[in-house]
Amino acid sequence: MIDMTPKEITQMLDDAMIGRLCMADADGTPYSIPLPFCWLDGALYLRLPLTGRKGEVLSRNNRVCFQVDAFTNSLDDYASALIEGCLVEVISLHEKETVKAANDAKYDRLRVGVRPGHGRSTPLSALPMRKIVVTQLSGKKKEPAPATVCIGN
Amino acid sequence: MIDMTPKEITQMLDDAMIGRLCMADADGTPYSIPLPFCWLDGALYLRLPLTGRKGEVLSRNNRVCFQVDAFTNSLDDYASALIEGCLVEVISLHEKETVKAANDAKYDRLRVGVRPGHGRSTPLSALPMRKIVVTQLSGKKKEPAPATVCIGN
Repeated sequence: MIDMTPKEITQMLDDAMIGRLCMADADGTPYSIPLPFCWLDGALYLRLPLTGRKGEVLSRNNRVCFQVDAFTNSLDDYASALIEGCLVEVISLHEKETVKAANDAKYDRLRVGVRPGHGRSTPLSALPMRKIVVTQLSGKKKEPAPATVCIGN
Repeated sequence: MIDMTPKEITQMLDDAMIGRLCMADADGTPYSIPLPFCWLDGALYLRLPLTGRKGEVLSRNNRVCFQVDAFTNSLDDYASALIEGCLVEVISLHEKETVKAANDAKYDRLRVGVRPGHGRSTPLSALPMRKIVVTQLSGKKKEPAPATVCIGN
């Protein structure tokens, strides 16, 4: 595995429909759920009401990571990116509006029939939007196959 | 979302090429990596040398979860399963041999060109095989669309 460039990571985040939010409970039990998401201006946005188990875990520890991957059906090529940081609530209606528009544009571009995440009809004031304030962004991908060297004919 | 049946979860684990191992460091920082895997006899097997960051995290806390999902390109159907437990080393050569054969059969059935995970040529004694001893197995899937009721004709 080799490191992905920041541009490759951003491209992967723009193209991925789903990622996995990973949390850690206070007793060290990890927990993970898949979610649609929107990557915008260096933050990762989620529609995330703090209900159920995720709400309990996140109320005790807001350090999270978000994992996104891509692989071929033959597993001969693969890559994985990891966004690490703290999850915080988005309060600003202007920020919510901007993210909602970017989220709609993303899932329209990906030709997803529905508009997941922030794309529903909930009023902005009631939209349970949260973002990961990023402390670390990293990605690994499979090393390219070595070039074939032909000796002689 | 509704609960998946144990049979649906097992089917998903048999069919998925990749899942994500989630860990939690001692300071509450979650970490996650995608991996091929083999589900056999109620345990989840991984080829997992304890190198790099994952090795450091797992040496401090062996509580893990493994998340597997499936979704359509239009996101109109999706499901996610979570296997929770503790990660332990597999020592028995007999167990390793059985898992290696099951892993090869899985990825052959899935028509993956390579044989990831335990399918390489490493001698069994040196194969860094670990398994999740499962404490909880759960899965959620999208609720089916409500049946259309025709009134009148």
